[in-house]
Amino acid sequence: MGKTFKTQYRVMYHDADSTGHLSIPALGNYVLDTAGLHAIELGISMQMLASQGMTWVMSGMRFQIHNLPEINSTLELSTQISGYSRISSQRDFFVTCGGQKVADISTEWLIINTHTRRPVFLTDVFPQIADLKGNEPPLDRYAHIRTQMQAPDTKKITVEYSDIDINSHLYSIRYLAMALDTLGKDILSGRRIQCINANFVSEILYGNEISLLSQCCQNTHNIEMQVEGKTMFRAQVETN
Amino acid sequence: MGKTFKTQYRVMYHDADSTGHLSIPALGNYVLDTAGLHAIELGISMQMLASQGMTWVMSGMRFQIHNLPEINSTLELSTQISGYSRISSQRDFFVTCGGQKVADISTEWLIINTHTRRPVFLTDVFPQIADLKGNEPPLDRYAHIRTQMQAPDTKKITVEYSDIDINSHLYSIRYLAMALDTLGKDILSGRRIQCINANFVSEILYGNEISLLSQCCQNTHNIEMQVEGKTMFRAQVETN
Repeated sequence: MGKTFKTQYRVMYHDADSTGHLSIPALGNYVLDTAGLHAIELGISMQMLASQGMTWVMSGMRFQIHNLPEINSTLELSTQISGYSRISSQRDFFVTCGGQKVADISTEWLIINTHTRRPVFLTDVFPQIADLKGNEPPLDRYAHIRTQMQAPDTKKITVEYSDIDINSHLYSIRYLAMALDTLGKDILSGRRIQCINANFVSEILYGNEISLLSQCCQNTHNIEMQVEGKTMFRAQVETN
Repeated sequence: MGKTFKTQYRVMYHDADSTGHLSIPALGNYVLDTAGLHAIELGISMQMLASQGMTWVMSGMRFQIHNLPEINSTLELSTQISGYSRISSQRDFFVTCGGQKVADISTEWLIINTHTRRPVFLTDVFPQIADLKGNEPPLDRYAHIRTQMQAPDTKKITVEYSDIDINSHLYSIRYLAMALDTLGKDILSGRRIQCINANFVSEILYGNEISLLSQCCQNTHNIEMQVEGKTMFRAQVETN
């Protein structure tokens, strides 16, 4: 049972964007899959939690992007638990390709009761976390975004079946992909994203109509998702 | 250089739908990735074609679904070229999991000139195809759907950056996912889909506004995508 978990992924056809490089949502998919594999090894998998009426949910993410490789490259992911509190744990990911840095990603997780949808005390359900902190220095934690968004809706999206995951809510990486899409093709195909802070505020469900609001000031892009006027997600994206 | 190409994939976290089973779009991703790997082995990869101003595009797909496995299962994919004509080739896929049939999928491909977007003579660009037909009997080819759709629009979707692929057009499996989403959560989470015929009529581009039309008669679901009144895609889905 390792404090550090390592795995590899090949950048597949559908992981590439129009430039032929790994897309940020595809990188996010591999981050979440790796988290799941490490949790299985640590005996705290989503399947195990489900049998007790609980599940993992992600409350925040921070991406520091270095260099996204091309299709068919091999990604090396290394992950560790970098810290924890009574109700949350920080899991960090170090992603490389042929020895070059691809991205550093910090995530924060809660365990919730699937009936009440409220957090439980993580250290009660997963007491062994005290012995599982990894050896690498923790990455910068995601920033809480408190900007009150004043922008008008840029668009509305209805959540479809293909957007939801095994928890029957909007898949975390779909929040991210929808938010990044507001930046438009010129910025995205220019591969200009350097840093992303994402705050998962509330669960978005099948059939919900999401209002996407976005605002840009120089190289800082703020995006907010609302459902019926309530903030569900916020992201701040820094471009060069 | 094998007539049959075999590969494996683990059903990852993001490949599962709300039921925890492999989703049909995720299966489609693996089918296309496998096609790409076999094309590299045969010396007719998308990258090689790109250097000559050409690319592969898919004109049709037929899925016969048997049993979609759960998350973390290992899929075995086997593919072969099952037939060809002057301008198209049929590539079939046989997907199993632990010896059980998952799905049989037949696809049809063209090579197009990336400037004119028109098909070229496949047998001129890829003459070695004559010696590469696989040994398994061909699967049933996809059906041409000629139904004139009279239904009103069910919804409109604007193509975002995350929907387009390395060819800078709507990724084939996104056509399929958008079409399947029209069936709604009850049918999709009931895992009732048995057969899909998909016809890729025309390229849909970034920023296009897609009108989705759908009609259901007993267990047959017809879906059509239009852009500015022109038919771009048709699918027929059979459920139990």
